Amino acid sequence: MLRSAIVGSTGYAGLELTRLLLRHPRVVPPLLLSRESQASEDQERRELFSPVDGTMIPIHPFSWDLLKKHDIELLFLATPHEVSRAWVPEALERGLRVVDLSGAWRLQNPDYRAVYKFSDEGAAADAVLSRAVFGMPELHREQIRDAQLIANPGCYPTAVILALMPLLRDGLIDLDHGIISDSKSGVTGAGKKPSQGTHFAEVSENFRAYGVFTHRHTGEILEQLELTPEQMTFSVHLLPIRRGILSSIYFHLRQKAGNAEIEASLRRFHAGNCFIRIFHPPRLPELQHVAYTNFCDVGWTLSPEGKRVMMVCCIDNLGKGAAGQAVQNMNVMYGWDETEGLIG
Amino acid sequence: MLRSAIVGSTGYAGLELTRLLLRHPRVVPPLLLSRESQASEDQERRELFSPVDGTMIPIHPFSWDLLKKHDIELLFLATPHEVSRAWVPEALERGLRVVDLSGAWRLQNPDYRAVYKFSDEGAAADAVLSRAVFGMPELHREQIRDAQLIANPGCYPTAVILALMPLLRDGLIDLDHGIISDSKSGVTGAGKKPSQGTHFAEVSENFRAYGVFTHRHTGEILEQLELTPEQMTFSVHLLPIRRGILSSIYFHLRQKAGNAEIEASLRRFHAGNCFIRIFHPPRLPELQHVAYTNFCDVGWTLSPEGKRVMMVCCIDNLGKGAAGQAVQNMNVMYGWDETEGLIG
Amino acid sequence: MLRSAIVGSTGYAGLELTRLLLRHPRVVPPLLLSRESQASEDQERRELFSPVDGTMIPIHPFSWDLLKKHDIELLFLATPHEVSRAWVPEALERGLRVVDLSGAWRLQNPDYRAVYKFSDEGAAADAVLSRAVFGMPELHREQIRDAQLIANPGCYPTAVILALMPLLRDGLIDLDHGIISDSKSGVTGAGKKPSQGTHFAEVSENFRAYGVFTHRHTGEILEQLELTPEQMTFSVHLLPIRRGILSSIYFHLRQKAGNAEIEASLRRFHAGNCFIRIFHPPRLPELQHVAYTNFCDVGWTLSPEGKRVMMVCCIDNLGKGAAGQAVQNMNVMYGWDETEGLIG
Amino acid sequence: MLRSAIVGSTGYAGLELTRLLLRHPRVVPPLLLSRESQASEDQERRELFSPVDGTMIPIHPFSWDLLKKHDIELLFLATPHEVSRAWVPEALERGLRVVDLSGAWRLQNPDYRAVYKFSDEGAAADAVLSRAVFGMPELHREQIRDAQLIANPGCYPTAVILALMPLLRDGLIDLDHGIISDSKSGVTGAGKKPSQGTHFAEVSENFRAYGVFTHRHTGEILEQLELTPEQMTFSVHLLPIRRGILSSIYFHLRQKAGNAEIEASLRRFHAGNCFIRIFHPPRLPELQHVAYTNFCDVGWTLSPEGKRVMMVCCIDNLGKGAAGQAVQNMNVMYGWDETEGLIG
Repeated sequence: MLRSAIVGSTGYAGLELTRLLLRHPRVVPPLLLSRESQASEDQERRELFSPVDGTMIPIHPFSWDLLKKHDIELLFLATPHEVSRAWVPEALERGLRVVDLSGAWRLQNPDYRAVYKFSDEGAAADAVLSRAVFGMPELHREQIRDAQLIANPGCYPTAVILALMPLLRDGLIDLDHGIISDSKSGVTGAGKKPSQGTHFAEVSENFRAYGVFTHRHTGEILEQLELTPEQMTFSVHLLPIRRGILSSIYFHLRQKAGNAEIEASLRRFHAGNCFIRIFHPPRLPELQHVAYTNFCDVGWTLSPEGKRVMMVCCIDNLGKGAAGQAVQNMNVMYGWDETEGLIG
Repeated sequence: MLRSAIVGSTGYAGLELTRLLLRHPRVVPPLLLSRESQASEDQERRELFSPVDGTMIPIHPFSWDLLKKHDIELLFLATPHEVSRAWVPEALERGLRVVDLSGAWRLQNPDYRAVYKFSDEGAAADAVLSRAVFGMPELHREQIRDAQLIANPGCYPTAVILALMPLLRDGLIDLDHGIISDSKSGVTGAGKKPSQGTHFAEVSENFRAYGVFTHRHTGEILEQLELTPEQMTFSVHLLPIRRGILSSIYFHLRQKAGNAEIEASLRRFHAGNCFIRIFHPPRLPELQHVAYTNFCDVGWTLSPEGKRVMMVCCIDNLGKGAAGQAVQNMNVMYGWDETEGLIG
Repeated sequence: MLRSAIVGSTGYAGLELTRLLLRHPRVVPPLLLSRESQASEDQERRELFSPVDGTMIPIHPFSWDLLKKHDIELLFLATPHEVSRAWVPEALERGLRVVDLSGAWRLQNPDYRAVYKFSDEGAAADAVLSRAVFGMPELHREQIRDAQLIANPGCYPTAVILALMPLLRDGLIDLDHGIISDSKSGVTGAGKKPSQGTHFAEVSENFRAYGVFTHRHTGEILEQLELTPEQMTFSVHLLPIRRGILSSIYFHLRQKAGNAEIEASLRRFHAGNCFIRIFHPPRLPELQHVAYTNFCDVGWTLSPEGKRVMMVCCIDNLGKGAAGQAVQNMNVMYGWDETEGLIG
Repeated sequence: MLRSAIVGSTGYAGLELTRLLLRHPRVVPPLLLSRESQASEDQERRELFSPVDGTMIPIHPFSWDLLKKHDIELLFLATPHEVSRAWVPEALERGLRVVDLSGAWRLQNPDYRAVYKFSDEGAAADAVLSRAVFGMPELHREQIRDAQLIANPGCYPTAVILALMPLLRDGLIDLDHGIISDSKSGVTGAGKKPSQGTHFAEVSENFRAYGVFTHRHTGEILEQLELTPEQMTFSVHLLPIRRGILSSIYFHLRQKAGNAEIEASLRRFHAGNCFIRIFHPPRLPELQHVAYTNFCDVGWTLSPEGKRVMMVCCIDNLGKGAAGQAVQNMNVMYGWDETEGLIG
C-alpha cells in the first residue's frame, strides 16, 4: 500500500483528490497537510471525517520531517504555482516522487512561461524543468512511468489537447485557417478564494467571457499541439455551475471529408486510452455525463458541405482536469491498472 | 416631479431602487451617491446607462451641498446601519425626508436593539427614534403619510408580520403553543460583499440553516407582533437563488376552525392592502410569482383535525422586502396611488 | 390609450409581454386570449392578478367577435408558427395590426423557410409575406412605422444581426474566412412545454450543444446579413439559467485594424439606436446586465496581431429577443418614443 | 463476488446504484434490466460505458430466465411501487434476495398504506409483507442480516427517523407539544419523468412547498417513530438543486436541558452507526457535505431558555436516501463491512 501526502487539501482540487485517494484500493488514506498553521476550524477535513470511529481526518501543518516520519513516498501538490516552484526542488532532492497540480512545471517554452512571471527563472529551475513530464498519459505514458516529477495538466488544455491531437497528427486540419476553441468552465475552476466574480449573485443567472486571447492556459495548448499563437484562438467563459469544462472547437478540414475519416483518426489515436469516449454524430457530449468521473468525452458535427467541423469535448475540471488525472498519473507511475480507483 | 437621491446605490437594494425610480412616473431620475470616492469603475451604474444618449448614470461622491444644489427633497439610504445612524440626524435637521433601508431606526425596544450594538445610544438618538415610523403601509399607513423619517422594514420581518398580524389581532392563534417561522432567503439578502459563505461553489447545490434563535431581524417581528421571545421561534436558511424569501409558519389554532375563518381574518385585515395576495387552499404561494414584484403572497394549509396550520408567505427580498416597499412608502408619503411605478 | 390583445399569454414570452404592457403608459391592460378553452386553473394569469381589487387578470377563449367587442386595434401573437400562419391572413383582412412573435412570416427566402415545413405555401401566403416587415427597428424603422404585419425577430438572430451588421456594411470582415457564432441560451428560449431536455435535473449543473449547423434561426441571420450558408457557422448551447442569450462571434478582419475602427463602425451604425450599448475593450458584456431589459450589449476583443476578433453580444431572450422588441415595434408603429415602457 | 441485477436502472436512483455497484469491491458489474423493450437510445447506460473496451453497459429487457442464466443472487428494484408489488412475490419464490427501493413493502400499518391504493391488498400480499424488513441498518441491523426482502426506506423518512429516534427513545421530547419537520428536497427526488413542476424554468430561482400534511412518506415516519398523526407535522418543499434533503425539525423538550444531554442521547443511540455524523453546536449540517456520500449529518440548536430545539439533519436523497442505503443493506445482508464501497 502506497503512502502519499497532499499539500493544499482544503482547496477544491485537493478535496477531490482526498476523496479519490480514500477510495483507492492501493493507497492508505493520504496524509493531509496545510502550508501554514491555520485556524482550528480548518484543521480537519470535515466533509470527510472517518465513519469508522467518528473522528475527522486531521490536517497537519507541513514539515519535511512529518513526511519522513510517515514514510511518504508520493507527494501531491495542490498549491499555488509559486509554492510548487519553491518546494519541488527540495522534494526531488529528498527522493520523493511529486505530482504537481499547479502550472509551475508544465511549460518548456519560456515565451509561454512568461505569463506566470516566475521569480526563480534560471539554471536551477531549468534543471528541475528538464525532468518534469507533462502528465497526460494519453500523450506521454512512457515518460510518466519513470518520472519523478509530474506536471499535471491544466483543466482547459486537457480536453482541448485530447480532442485536437489526433486530427492534427493526421494532418486533417487546415492550419492556415486557424482553430478556435470557445471554452466554458464551472466556478470551481476559479478556486475557493471569495471574490466579486465568484459571488453567487454575480454568477447565478449570469454568463460571461473572460481572458480572451490572454488566458494563461493558452501556452500549454500551443506547446503540446505545436501550434503558433496565430493558429489558435482560445477564449474562456464562466458557467453558472460548480464543476465541468466544455469546449466547442471550430476548424476547417484541409480537404472535404466524411464522419468516417474523423472518427477513424480519433479512434486510432485513442485506442487503449481508456478514459476517452468518442461519440458518433449526431450525438454530442454533455457535461452531466462526465461530472464526478475521469472521462473525457469527444464528439463533433460536420457542416453540410463537409469542410467545417465543430468538435465538442468535455471533462470534469476537478476530475480529468485535476485530481482524477493526478490519480491516473499515479496509477501509471506505479504500474497499476490505469482505471484503478477511478471507475463508478 | 419629485427630486430624490440614493446613497448606497451600488448594493443590490440600491440598484433595485434605482431601477424602480427610473421607471416611476412622478420622480425625476434619482441622484446616485456614493459614501466615498471610489475606483473609477464604480463611478457609474453601468447596468443602467441611459439609452437616450448612450451615457451611463453617474455616481457622485456624497455631499450635503450636492443635495442642496440638486434640490433633493427625499433621501433614500441603502447604507449599513451605522452610516444611517450617523447621517439621519443631520438629514432631518436640513429638512430632508428620509427613507432608511437599514436597521438603524426600526426598533423602539432597547432590548431588541441591543443586537445592533449602536455606539450612539442616548437622548439624541432617542429623539430621532421617536420620530421614526416603521415603514409598513399595511400597518402604519397614516403615520407614514406625515413622517419625516421612515424606517423601511427588514426583508424577513416583512412577510412574517403581514401573514401573522391578521390572525393574531383576531386572537385565532394559540400563543401558549408558540409560533415557528422556518424562513428561507436568496443570496442577495446577504449583501454584495464577497465571502466564503456567498461563494458560488459553496451556495449552488447546497442548502443550510444559519442564525437560528439569534437573527437580528427577530426583534422587529416580536416588536410589531407584540410577542415575547419564547412565543416565536425564528430560523433562517440560505437558498441557492438570487432573489426571494419564503417563510413556512407553523402554529396551533386556539380552537378548531375551518379555512373560511382563516381566510375571513386575512381578507378583513388586508382589505385595501393592494400588494397582499391571499391564496385559497390548497394553492400555496411560490417564489417565482413574487420575483421582481412588490407583492406579498400568503396562503395556508389546515391539518386534517383542524387544529394545526402551516402558513406560507413570500416576497421578493429586494422588492417588497426592500426597494419596492421603499417606493411604496414614498407613494404614501406624497399622497400618490400606492401602486404607482410598482405594477407589471 | 391603445387597445391590444395577446394570444398565447400563458407561455414565457406571452407572460413577459403582458407584464410590459401592464406597465406601459400608453396602452390599457391587454386582453388575454387563449387559443382553446382550457382547464379552469389556466383561465387566469395568477402571477399578475390585479392588486387594485384582488382579482386576477382573466384569460378568455379566443374569438374574432371578442376582439371586435373590445375594440382591439393591435394583436400580439405569441403562438406556435403554424397558428400564426393560419390566423394572420384573417386578422389583416379584419383591419387589425399584428405583431407576430413566431417564425411564421420572417423569411422571404423560400430556401431558408423550408425548415419550417409550412403546409400553406402558395400565392396567398406569399401575398401576406410580401407585406410582412422584419421587426428590428435598428434595421427597418421606417417600414415598421407603416406596417400592418410585423414579424418579430427570433431571439438568437436579434443579437447576432445587431452585432455584425455594422462591420459587414463597412466591409471590415473577411468573408472568405467565414464567421462563427457560438451562441448560448437560457431555458425559457425552449418554451414552457416540459420535456426530458428541460427537466431541472438534466439542465442544472449541465451544459450542452444542440442544433449545430441546423438551427432554424440560421436562415434569419443569413437573410438579414446577406451571407451564404458557407460564410456563417452557427451553433447553439443550453445554459443552466432562465433568461438570456450570449453569442461569442469570431471572425478575421479584411485587414489589420485597431479598436478605434471597430468602435467607429459600431457607433456610426447604431447612432440613434437607443437600446444598443457598445462597450469599450477590455470590458465585455455579460448576461446579468441585460436581464429584464430591452438592451442589446455589444463588445469585442482584438487579437494581439490585430487580425482576429471575438465579439460578444447579449440580450434577454424574453426582452429584446421577444416581448421587449415587440413593445419597441409597437412604439415605432404608433409614433411613440421608442423607449416608452421599456426603461428601468 | 456477488452477482446482482438492477431493474429500473435508467432512473436517477437506479443510475446512482449502478455507479456504486461498479465501484464495489465485492460485486461483479450489475446486470442492468429494463421493464420493457425500449427505444434503442435507452438500451445502454451511456454515462457509464466501460472504459476498458469502449463499449457501453447494455440494458437488457427483463426476464426471469435472464436472471437465472446470469446466476443472479440479489435483485435490486428501482421501480414504481406497483411494479415492485407485482414482481416481488415471484422473486422471493425463485429464491432471490430482494432490495426494493420503492414504497411497496415499507408499511405494516394498513392505515398508512392506504395512500398507495395498492390493488393487491389481501392475504397473499400480507404474507410477503410479514417477511419484509424496513431497511434501515441503524434500527434493524439484525433482521436485515437474515432478511430475504428489504424494504429500502423513503428519502424523507430516512433522515427524520435517524435524527429523532434517539431523543424519542430517551423520552426527551414533549409529545403533547408535537413535532414539526420542515423538509426540503432536491429535484431528483421527484423522479426523471418530465412535468411542469420539474421544468428547469419553473424550479430554478423558485422555491415552493407541496404535499403539506399529506405526503405519502408521512406514514413511514409515524410507523417507525411510533407517533400519532397529530404528534407530527410534516411538510415538504422543492429546492432548486439536483440532490439532497435537509429537514429542520422543531420540538419542545419535556424539561429544560443542555446541549450535553441532547448530544449524549444521540451519541449513545448511534454508537457504531458509522454513517451518522453528529455535530456540536453551534455548527449545523449543510447539504454540500453529504452530497455524493452515504452520510446522515445531524446537528441542533437549543433556544436561550433551554426548552425549544431546532434539529437539522441531512442526507443525499440518492445516497443514504436511496442507492447508498441499498448498498449499505447489501453489506449487512452479506456480512461485509458496512462501509464497503461507500467511502470517499
